[in-house]
Amino acid sequence: MTAEQNLAALQETLPVIPAPRAIYKPCLIDGKYLHVSGHVPLRDDGTRIQGKVGVDMDADEARQIARLVGLCILSTVRAKLGTLDRVKRVIKIFGMVNATPDFDRHPHVINGCSELFAQVWGEENGIGTRSAVGMGSLPDRVPVEIEAVFELKGEDEA
Amino acid sequence: MTAEQNLAALQETLPVIPAPRAIYKPCLIDGKYLHVSGHVPLRDDGTRIQGKVGVDMDADEARQIARLVGLCILSTVRAKLGTLDRVKRVIKIFGMVNATPDFDRHPHVINGCSELFAQVWGEENGIGTRSAVGMGSLPDRVPVEIEAVFELKGEDEA
Amino acid sequence: MTAEQNLAALQETLPVIPAPRAIYKPCLIDGKYLHVSGHVPLRDDGTRIQGKVGVDMDADEARQIARLVGLCILSTVRAKLGTLDRVKRVIKIFGMVNATPDFDRHPHVINGCSELFAQVWGEENGIGTRSAVGMGSLPDRVPVEIEAVFELKGEDEA
Repeated sequence: MTAEQNLAALQETLPVIPAPRAIYKPCLIDGKYLHVSGHVPLRDDGTRIQGKVGVDMDADEARQIARLVGLCILSTVRAKLGTLDRVKRVIKIFGMVNATPDFDRHPHVINGCSELFAQVWGEENGIGTRSAVGMGSLPDRVPVEIEAVFELKGEDEA
Repeated sequence: MTAEQNLAALQETLPVIPAPRAIYKPCLIDGKYLHVSGHVPLRDDGTRIQGKVGVDMDADEARQIARLVGLCILSTVRAKLGTLDRVKRVIKIFGMVNATPDFDRHPHVINGCSELFAQVWGEENGIGTRSAVGMGSLPDRVPVEIEAVFELKGEDEA
Repeated sequence: MTAEQNLAALQETLPVIPAPRAIYKPCLIDGKYLHVSGHVPLRDDGTRIQGKVGVDMDADEARQIARLVGLCILSTVRAKLGTLDRVKRVIKIFGMVNATPDFDRHPHVINGCSELFAQVWGEENGIGTRSAVGMGSLPDRVPVEIEAVFELKGEDEA
């Protein structure tokens, strides 16, 4: 099964990612790496999900939102590469949770994204290194922001 | 126009960056990459600008401070490489804002640095991937800290 | 003196790192790089040290905890590579302190880890780039979490 076939089997919709409103690139190819900027949870209508984890939502709700952030990342990756099948593996994700000062379940939240990537690219290639941590605040008061680095397949691995 | 010519046209002064007081290198060359440690806003007299964004200063003031952090990064880069012209492009910046828990304009703040890099290296090469996020606290209570990864020109691109 | 000899001279015990409870790899080899996920302070019995820096502990206590996090990273590196001697140098560490909003001594805290790496790999190779910053919260309410990127020795540098 390819990554695109795995995603199709999940019957998920990839949100359309609007052009950046600030001064950055959503992603950038650097040799065999694809660097992906911090992504936030976008609804289908382009609005952002907002709220602080631990007061406006609990860890389970935030985990679902982290999965949506993962879908947003997939959308950016596919828009750049044409297909998710050009990704060889996840090198790293940095998962940021906008939480109350005593929140302690960041790994549970970010698992929402990690699980998605494992479903798409498989257990071995879809799971990389990670930190899942708590921010003091995030842009537009979003509850989760995630950035990522992927390794691309070589010419002979297509 | 080269990066050095672009900077000269801006008529900005690059702060002198003192030697680290803690155990780290300000930057490090790794093959074609230049990794730059988290930089803070230093005045010309070597003192740090302090304050929490959202209470001690607003987003516009913080944006100017993020530009100053960018100038500090340029100073470190030039001290290491001899000239900003050896940088090929920005791969990534990670912009950290020391803000109140409900602050939501981190991208506006970090644009102060991103705009500077775009002025120096141009729109295509000066803008890379980015996250602009809110920290719970920062060293010496500085309002902004930014780290960066640059790609260097190859021998044949000088 | 090799890194393993340096560590032996320190008479430190490396904690045993349990398998991840969440969806990530503790570390990952990518060509000449070893990426290490965010590590937290684990006691010998596998429990985590908890507390917020600035209220439950001071900067000196937190610095000792950052050293313990460094020992946990060494444990993961040795488990992956067989020996710390395969590491050429530290490229980068990202030190995260779970602190009160006005805490300002993050560099002092993270020095606990940086000093350890300098003792193990020497001043030149054990010290890399770094950011030492304050998070709003951390998993399981740990006071310190650190992630790292190392460069490995090439075949001919063994």
